[in-house]
Amino acid sequence: MNTQPLKIAIAGLGTVGGGTVHLLHDQAALLAQRAGRPLTMVGVAALEKPVDLPLGGVPFFTDARVMARDADYDVLVELIGGAGGIALDIVKTALGRGRSVVTANKAMIAHHGGELARLAEANNAVIGFEASVGGGIPIIKSLREGLAGNRVTQVMGILNGTCNYILTTMREQGRDFSDVLAEAQALGYAEADPSFDIDGIDTAHKLAILASLAFAMPLDIAAVAAEGIRHVSALDIRYADELGYRIKLLGVARLTDDGVESRVYPAMVPLSFPLAHVGGVFNAVVTEGDFVGRTVLEGRGAGARPTASAVVSDLMDLARGRATPTFGVPVAQLAARPAAPSGAHHSAYYIRLMVRDEPGVFADIAAALRDERVSMEQIIQRGRAPNEIVPVVMTVHETDEASMLRAVARIAALAAVAEPPRIIRIETL
Amino acid sequence: MNTQPLKIAIAGLGTVGGGTVHLLHDQAALLAQRAGRPLTMVGVAALEKPVDLPLGGVPFFTDARVMARDADYDVLVELIGGAGGIALDIVKTALGRGRSVVTANKAMIAHHGGELARLAEANNAVIGFEASVGGGIPIIKSLREGLAGNRVTQVMGILNGTCNYILTTMREQGRDFSDVLAEAQALGYAEADPSFDIDGIDTAHKLAILASLAFAMPLDIAAVAAEGIRHVSALDIRYADELGYRIKLLGVARLTDDGVESRVYPAMVPLSFPLAHVGGVFNAVVTEGDFVGRTVLEGRGAGARPTASAVVSDLMDLARGRATPTFGVPVAQLAARPAAPSGAHHSAYYIRLMVRDEPGVFADIAAALRDERVSMEQIIQRGRAPNEIVPVVMTVHETDEASMLRAVARIAALAAVAEPPRIIRIETL
Repeated sequence: MNTQPLKIAIAGLGTVGGGTVHLLHDQAALLAQRAGRPLTMVGVAALEKPVDLPLGGVPFFTDARVMARDADYDVLVELIGGAGGIALDIVKTALGRGRSVVTANKAMIAHHGGELARLAEANNAVIGFEASVGGGIPIIKSLREGLAGNRVTQVMGILNGTCNYILTTMREQGRDFSDVLAEAQALGYAEADPSFDIDGIDTAHKLAILASLAFAMPLDIAAVAAEGIRHVSALDIRYADELGYRIKLLGVARLTDDGVESRVYPAMVPLSFPLAHVGGVFNAVVTEGDFVGRTVLEGRGAGARPTASAVVSDLMDLARGRATPTFGVPVAQLAARPAAPSGAHHSAYYIRLMVRDEPGVFADIAAALRDERVSMEQIIQRGRAPNEIVPVVMTVHETDEASMLRAVARIAALAAVAEPPRIIRIETL
Repeated sequence: MNTQPLKIAIAGLGTVGGGTVHLLHDQAALLAQRAGRPLTMVGVAALEKPVDLPLGGVPFFTDARVMARDADYDVLVELIGGAGGIALDIVKTALGRGRSVVTANKAMIAHHGGELARLAEANNAVIGFEASVGGGIPIIKSLREGLAGNRVTQVMGILNGTCNYILTTMREQGRDFSDVLAEAQALGYAEADPSFDIDGIDTAHKLAILASLAFAMPLDIAAVAAEGIRHVSALDIRYADELGYRIKLLGVARLTDDGVESRVYPAMVPLSFPLAHVGGVFNAVVTEGDFVGRTVLEGRGAGARPTASAVVSDLMDLARGRATPTFGVPVAQLAARPAAPSGAHHSAYYIRLMVRDEPGVFADIAAALRDERVSMEQIIQRGRAPNEIVPVVMTVHETDEASMLRAVARIAALAAVAEPPRIIRIETL
């Protein structure tokens, strides 16, 4: 057994980098005991040397490329971020030198994971990316190792803490999206440019990674259809409450007879389903395997300390010599699967219309649904307000998406319908 | 990398053994791809050869001891059960031969884990016991590897599917304990002698294993105080509902200033806490780590297929050469920790009294609580029924257990109190 120190070079000393330095420093004795060898920082790189980190005499680099190329390390920890650029450059440099890589960079893995895995295999190196999905939740390890005996048929989850915080706060405080988003930005929970989170792009990156692992198929970020939470209104959240649902931004990947569905969308989740109770910045992932059945893993999806916990779990695997192919099997054995056509998706739906309250409008709406063979489950309309614009909420039984969209297009074209209809999928699990 | 088949001998072909044979057979190609080598059965042992398992020409032994001693295997899978006896014998034989062991046997690990871990270390063998706790949930792997960067301060969970099924059914159907137990026995969900499950012994075994892993301390099953669910009544479950709680049998291990608390007891869990929503035969484990914060892992806690999933995950680790010391660190480095004195436990409590409805009785009860400095939170008594026996339910604020027990003893001695008071801890997390 190797008892030499594991030599670690860290590129990027922002939130996660700082947390990782603190963890390696604060728990050094514990880590050495569990790993059977010390975990030693041999280099750190950042644009400016931070004054508040316990770095002691660890060599400091202002150029991460120089560190990646010249320093003597066993593993490069990439915590700079971004799909390409310097992050990708230094990871390739490290792998090319036969050094392993640990990263929290979901954008880079989602866009370049296949290429990087091939490079790692060619150079007998390992890529750890536990921190790229679900913060501190050991979901990558669970999919790749703990559930390795299963054919996974579905993986879905709440994968973006910013969105879950916004949706949870909107519900608890009855506030509007833009209002809560502005507050989250002021508090540092959301970025100045929030689109990466709230348009579902971050969730799509994470879902692509999970789908590749779950179904042993090559990464395909282009196959993930992403819809965010900008259009979720306080009104829809109130109706969801009334109907016994919570609205959550989900990433869902499932094997169907029509192919693989990989989608990100806000959904109504019944209170009987575990994801309904995952609030605030927590993330959770539900996996369905043919032997294990359903498992749910929940924890903090972001933040310096939880993400550092995941980074260090990868370092501990490297220190112990525990290795697994990047996506569970060698890259050459990943098998592409066809994407399911979007119109084939089956789901129940919530529909909210803003309608002028006038005679005959219900008949027109019902006819549009009937003509597309969409079966109404319930309808909510409170009181009468002749000639005013009022909300009308319906739920419909499971139907294919193509029929649903045709019915909604017909409804949207009715003269009495004052705004574009809002439709939200209902998860029936 | 080793590409020879991993040679597997399976002792015990009951529920879990049968499930494991099915998994190894049904998913052979998938497992070989993920492990980088075939997983091959080279022997099975049982009292009678089952006719319904896909065993092909795998050599069959009626004496597991002979197989353990003579067969040429890399890993012995022990699925016979029982803390000692033949299970313990064959595991020692295998380890003594330098062969690894995979087991689902929580009783054996809880009682002999330290000795077996020492034997494994001395012979350069590995013990996998993922299947011993939480069925298919990858909780051992998560504690030992995924959360290895953390100092764990608490691990608690719903660890016995039989008890959770009984409690869930009592609540959903408003039925009594003995009634639901009898039904569970008829359905095969509970044993003919159910005491192992319903008196909390099985949960205590699992908790002792989790506590050893979480706190890197030697196994100490004697330190776990176990209380079961025989005394949980339909009436208490109704009151719990009304107060916003679910009653769950919990195993709880936590580090406190007074030492380690390891206890099994039925508790009232607030609906805001994830464990409240874990129903039926599902298990779940909550871990608190100093960097990761809270994680929750949930899944099927028993059954042929989920447990086989866990057994095979250990086999996949062996096949890939991924090894970890049995309890996370070498046995010699496990450090005993003092057990916290039981009276020091702090908790809020639910108290149900059966009281003769007569003047002055409330004053006596309130005085007993006041004298022991136990602070009442709320009291429920419906209507009046002079001189009848009526239920009176109270909740009290967090207090130490010793004071609580003194107060309850005084209350029990009051002439108007007709039955022994029932007290149930309230988890305030």
